[in-house]
Amino acid sequence: MTVSVDSSKTIHLPEGFSFSAVAAGLKASRGLDLAVVEAVPGTNAAALFTTNRVVAAPIEVGRAHLATTGGRVRVVIVNSGNANCATGRPGLRACARICHGTARLLRVRDNEVFPSSTGIIGVPMPVEKILATLPELIAATEATEQGIHHFARAIMTTDTRPKLASVRFPSGDSEVRLLGIAKGSGMIHPQLATVLVYVFADIAAGTTDLKRLLRRTCDETFNCISVDGDTSTNDTVLLLASGGSGVRLRDPSVRKKFENALLEVCQSLAEQIICDGEGVQHVIQLFVEQAKSREEALQIARAVAHSLLVKTAWAGADPNWGRILAAVGRCGVPIDPKRIDILIGNQLVCRRGIANPFDETNAHQALSQPRCDIRIRLQRGRSSAEFLTTDLTAEYVRINADYST
Amino acid sequence: MTVSVDSSKTIHLPEGFSFSAVAAGLKASRGLDLAVVEAVPGTNAAALFTTNRVVAAPIEVGRAHLATTGGRVRVVIVNSGNANCATGRPGLRACARICHGTARLLRVRDNEVFPSSTGIIGVPMPVEKILATLPELIAATEATEQGIHHFARAIMTTDTRPKLASVRFPSGDSEVRLLGIAKGSGMIHPQLATVLVYVFADIAAGTTDLKRLLRRTCDETFNCISVDGDTSTNDTVLLLASGGSGVRLRDPSVRKKFENALLEVCQSLAEQIICDGEGVQHVIQLFVEQAKSREEALQIARAVAHSLLVKTAWAGADPNWGRILAAVGRCGVPIDPKRIDILIGNQLVCRRGIANPFDETNAHQALSQPRCDIRIRLQRGRSSAEFLTTDLTAEYVRINADYST
Repeated sequence: MTVSVDSSKTIHLPEGFSFSAVAAGLKASRGLDLAVVEAVPGTNAAALFTTNRVVAAPIEVGRAHLATTGGRVRVVIVNSGNANCATGRPGLRACARICHGTARLLRVRDNEVFPSSTGIIGVPMPVEKILATLPELIAATEATEQGIHHFARAIMTTDTRPKLASVRFPSGDSEVRLLGIAKGSGMIHPQLATVLVYVFADIAAGTTDLKRLLRRTCDETFNCISVDGDTSTNDTVLLLASGGSGVRLRDPSVRKKFENALLEVCQSLAEQIICDGEGVQHVIQLFVEQAKSREEALQIARAVAHSLLVKTAWAGADPNWGRILAAVGRCGVPIDPKRIDILIGNQLVCRRGIANPFDETNAHQALSQPRCDIRIRLQRGRSSAEFLTTDLTAEYVRINADYST
Repeated sequence: MTVSVDSSKTIHLPEGFSFSAVAAGLKASRGLDLAVVEAVPGTNAAALFTTNRVVAAPIEVGRAHLATTGGRVRVVIVNSGNANCATGRPGLRACARICHGTARLLRVRDNEVFPSSTGIIGVPMPVEKILATLPELIAATEATEQGIHHFARAIMTTDTRPKLASVRFPSGDSEVRLLGIAKGSGMIHPQLATVLVYVFADIAAGTTDLKRLLRRTCDETFNCISVDGDTSTNDTVLLLASGGSGVRLRDPSVRKKFENALLEVCQSLAEQIICDGEGVQHVIQLFVEQAKSREEALQIARAVAHSLLVKTAWAGADPNWGRILAAVGRCGVPIDPKRIDILIGNQLVCRRGIANPFDETNAHQALSQPRCDIRIRLQRGRSSAEFLTTDLTAEYVRINADYST
């Protein structure tokens, strides 16, 4: 994964989408917490969801809606401040009522509404507050940068900043535009999907093609990041294609360009999520190389990325490679310690499983930067994986130990 | 696992062992860091080691010695301040030289010496310092409480207190005595063995019987605890039986009593390790009940015990059961969320996967105690597991982020 943040600066608004957000009173802060996107008729969608066995009500509802419509979506409605998870039948009813209320106001079918929620688990949804705010929300939709920025702010929870990425590419006389919006800061260890991510595109594409593309892109981006190893109950990635550009994905000259554009947007959002990880001071890009398979490379990357001792050493910019080696050793892959090399920044610190003389001050300085590369070479095969993760700071503990946040 | 700390108060010195410790200058603190136990001829041993693929030199040497002698041990030599791990051939040579020096002074064979090391990984062993201190160390061995306390202090690293447990039981006219000594505070997630644990007994027993007993006892004690999920490279549990009591393990009236006594000692040590976990403010005893197998109950217990979001909520005494449910949901066991009950202390907080009305102040107070029970009921079967773990505090991060400790 090459990482770029430039794509977050300019917004290329895809044809066929309008945005709005309001404060419905779900967040104690009284900030924006209810957001909507309206899509033009003919918009096709693909979505990926959390692999957690405990799933939130909106995920059950959204999955059912996509199945019954064959992937048609006209509205996305999102609230923050409450996950609507572990809320039982009342939670499902609340979600259905929100979809129905939204559908009625926008004159679409209930199952063309795609719902999302994020926030605390196990607290009943304040559904009346949401229903009362819907008319104001929907009256305000606009196909503008302001609408997009409001939407991006409204889906935030512990995030400190909105996460946006946008890319465009020409195709004949037309132009295809992609816009991605995400939230996520804690409970970040997506598996097959992640947090809340919405990618809007004005390409014309069928749901089967969209789904295949989305799965491949997620595997290389959102499934290769972790803040704390906790896979959320509400993870959702939704890709919407309005067709507004008139450009068709099936056109052979378009497919590769769109694939690259989608990858760029998702990479940028994945990186923005990691950089805004709860309490994060250092972002670490792990390269696990010379593995027998990509799966085992990822297994090792995850073990290292989730080791408390490794993450706390990073917080102290401590080039304690022994903790990295110990994490590799316990992860279940039958590695041979005598073949393992570890690099911190550009320095080889561990060679064939033992200390390699290195400049400790230099390694400490590399780890003191906001971002540092760490490379683990296994000498087992030709597969590799890149994984983006974070240190673990006292601030992470403070954020998450605050009683009832 | 029933938990008792009383057994740490009185020491019942088993026949046939003498102890000593000195400061060899391995620890920056200049504290005791080199310790020895001398056992009488005829002492049999069983040992379990880390399952980490990266293993320290003393583990390779100790395993080989036990294999070649058929489980005879005359001396245990332990240093803290350096793990002698990821030190390659020089590390193995250093370990062999320490064993040889010790054997020569005590007139035993090299392979009757059992070595252990604990401390930083990847730093060459200061073998000359150890060799120079051996005569002083060995001259001072004594079969006294003072010798035992010195030994227990010398093997500590980030531990804040020594860990001892002792039990005796009568058998005919004789008495059998067990004494356990352990160290461990961080890198605690033993798998098949743990940290450094030495259990001395004066029962007469063969190595095969000792091994079987030790494995069963470890599975119920040290393999059911975790501070940070990081399995050490140096984990060792060693059980020595001197035969000094004249009581034989094979005697049918003895076996069950010895098994219970061993379990009690190991339980107490496991609990002392957890209570002294790095930065720990709250100890949590997890009960996973109604699982299909003990394995899946443990899998769930580990996922909960290792969830950063759960551990940090405990640090804040926050009865945020949604995070527990989310950790259960992502751990790979195909649970049905609709059948899960969660109790914090004596209160049912989650019933059949959704919030059960409970007294939040009461739950907060239960979690504010030094120790709290949390029960997870799955309604899947009849197996269960108990697991002892800790919260994750900013102090843990401080301890482990301190540059080059």
